[in-house]
Amino acid sequence: MDYETPLFFRVMEYADAADRDVVDMVSGNPDWEPPEALREGLREYAELEPDRFQYPASEGLPELRAEIAARRGVDPDQIVVTNGAGEANYLAMARALERDAGDEILLTDPVYPYYPGKTTMLGGAQRYVATDDDGQLDPAAVRAAASEDTAAIVVNTPNNPTGAVYPESTMAALVDIAEENDAILISDEVYDHYDLSGTFASALETDSTNRIVTNAVSKSMAVTGLRVGYAIFPPELVDDARSRHMLVNVATTRPGQYAALKAFRETDPEYYERNRERLRERVETFTDALEAAGAEYTTPQGSFYVLARFDGYPGTLENVERLIDEAGVAGMPGEAFGDSRSEWLRFALVTPRVEEAAERLAAYFD
Amino acid sequence: MDYETPLFFRVMEYADAADRDVVDMVSGNPDWEPPEALREGLREYAELEPDRFQYPASEGLPELRAEIAARRGVDPDQIVVTNGAGEANYLAMARALERDAGDEILLTDPVYPYYPGKTTMLGGAQRYVATDDDGQLDPAAVRAAASEDTAAIVVNTPNNPTGAVYPESTMAALVDIAEENDAILISDEVYDHYDLSGTFASALETDSTNRIVTNAVSKSMAVTGLRVGYAIFPPELVDDARSRHMLVNVATTRPGQYAALKAFRETDPEYYERNRERLRERVETFTDALEAAGAEYTTPQGSFYVLARFDGYPGTLENVERLIDEAGVAGMPGEAFGDSRSEWLRFALVTPRVEEAAERLAAYFD
Repeated sequence: MDYETPLFFRVMEYADAADRDVVDMVSGNPDWEPPEALREGLREYAELEPDRFQYPASEGLPELRAEIAARRGVDPDQIVVTNGAGEANYLAMARALERDAGDEILLTDPVYPYYPGKTTMLGGAQRYVATDDDGQLDPAAVRAAASEDTAAIVVNTPNNPTGAVYPESTMAALVDIAEENDAILISDEVYDHYDLSGTFASALETDSTNRIVTNAVSKSMAVTGLRVGYAIFPPELVDDARSRHMLVNVATTRPGQYAALKAFRETDPEYYERNRERLRERVETFTDALEAAGAEYTTPQGSFYVLARFDGYPGTLENVERLIDEAGVAGMPGEAFGDSRSEWLRFALVTPRVEEAAERLAAYFD
Repeated sequence: MDYETPLFFRVMEYADAADRDVVDMVSGNPDWEPPEALREGLREYAELEPDRFQYPASEGLPELRAEIAARRGVDPDQIVVTNGAGEANYLAMARALERDAGDEILLTDPVYPYYPGKTTMLGGAQRYVATDDDGQLDPAAVRAAASEDTAAIVVNTPNNPTGAVYPESTMAALVDIAEENDAILISDEVYDHYDLSGTFASALETDSTNRIVTNAVSKSMAVTGLRVGYAIFPPELVDDARSRHMLVNVATTRPGQYAALKAFRETDPEYYERNRERLRERVETFTDALEAAGAEYTTPQGSFYVLARFDGYPGTLENVERLIDEAGVAGMPGEAFGDSRSEWLRFALVTPRVEEAAERLAAYFD
């Protein structure tokens, strides 16, 4: 059984093994500091009594669920604290397929490759809706693709890899389409703190029993290795999701939950604004250099990524490896994100060496 | 869809909400100190550079896999570091069912209730083999129950709830039976550091491509909330298990892996021996009091648990709740572990108040 394992780790390993200096723009690992309160949370945790090292409640620490619920305006009982957004999306997609209301998962093209992988693993069928050149999703195209076979529509906003941020009208329409087809809208909003456009709209803004929202502290707090995320379910769907979470993972790591809770409570808005500002500067630096190099590229409204197209250099794994060896810049092959971007490469702006990378690319493709 | 969610959390919540002092003997949460090196690992981790807060390799930190591989005498490539033994067992059972070599999971009666829950969730069928009064498993009975429909045989040694430790001859026979039926022996050895009998034999001692061994630091290092475990697969089965791990959880929490690695490296054998000695004393105290009270009971060869039977007081959830309210002792209903122990209650010896609990039980059933 092949689940189409995402290529991220493979490309990172290739870059690590390269015989030269490489600017790593492969994965979405922030290179900036986590909140100081998160570090402090780990320090505090290390001194707690032994009983605090034991199983937390399976669905998450009550204080953490209450904190998230207050921030998101939902009932704490709707929340399952998960092993990152990865498990949150897995629980959400499994729950949608288990409703026996269709076995098709509607995905966007380009797509974050974990979604098709999870779909196949869970026994669902993939169906794709193309986004436009800016990465925006036309609700009419989604409506045309949706049917009684649709179990879920999975979207990601701000988007990886396109950088698109879907406006409120799109999110509301997607919820409607889910309701019309007895399906579930699954909205992965893990980049919500990196909306550079001011247009981000959570699926939570449209009240419905047909949508699940997933998120994590992985990106917002620059701790992809902590593995603390969450899913917000409609009350009707939460019980079985909790059961699956218990049977797969028992519970989510407690020191991570403790540290995330402290960071939620004590981190100023300036922390997040500073990270957005850094990202804005990098987008400008990188796209200016791509412009100067005559490349085609996307300007992200949010998330960490720029897609670039160099004439005669398709976005294959082979070309990505060649770029690592010959230019010293590691990106991701566009073909990993679906057919529509197979001519493109994806670069993650999570390195202080964005300018250097852009110069290397400009020189290489000169 | 009801996955038969284990009752542990439900009973713990009932005990917590009780209007009186209750000795908690419900779950297998050690009440003793984790290794000092594990606390120190968390302290160290809190000071690391931002890049150390990002995704570890999906299959686990290379140093941690190397450490486990050296201890267990296997190749590091056979190891997936998991979110506790819970995920390790989930990956193992999923892998066995995906081989398309049967859809039946052979379980023991009594059984650790997560196994049937996972079986149902994964679409497998349950089939039970009764253990004897001491909790020992007769290989002939397993052989009689096994067939071409058998995907896996799942055992747990030292055993929860019986306290049985299977001898080397049983483990070798179970591997043989798995091979004879093109099935996988899954051996959950999470209590291996609590063998009080000196007779523990790991399934790893019998070389085979038909067995998967699961384990965790949860019990051995008294950190059930850390969520760091592992599964050891035959080389033929590890790739798909890694894919599933990546698609479900992406990776296991990195601070937990870092702390577990430091604890593996720096914890003396005396730490584990001290914990066994404490457990031996508690077993003696508790069973002496049960003997004096005229109850029937098991004397564990390993793990944390004593099963006890009081005349006219079946091991139902209702009776467990009554015992919490009226005697101030919280155990688990025997019926949660299968039909064969429905007259029994399970008590976990992970409280310093074992003697007090025994006295309360003796007085209540007097």
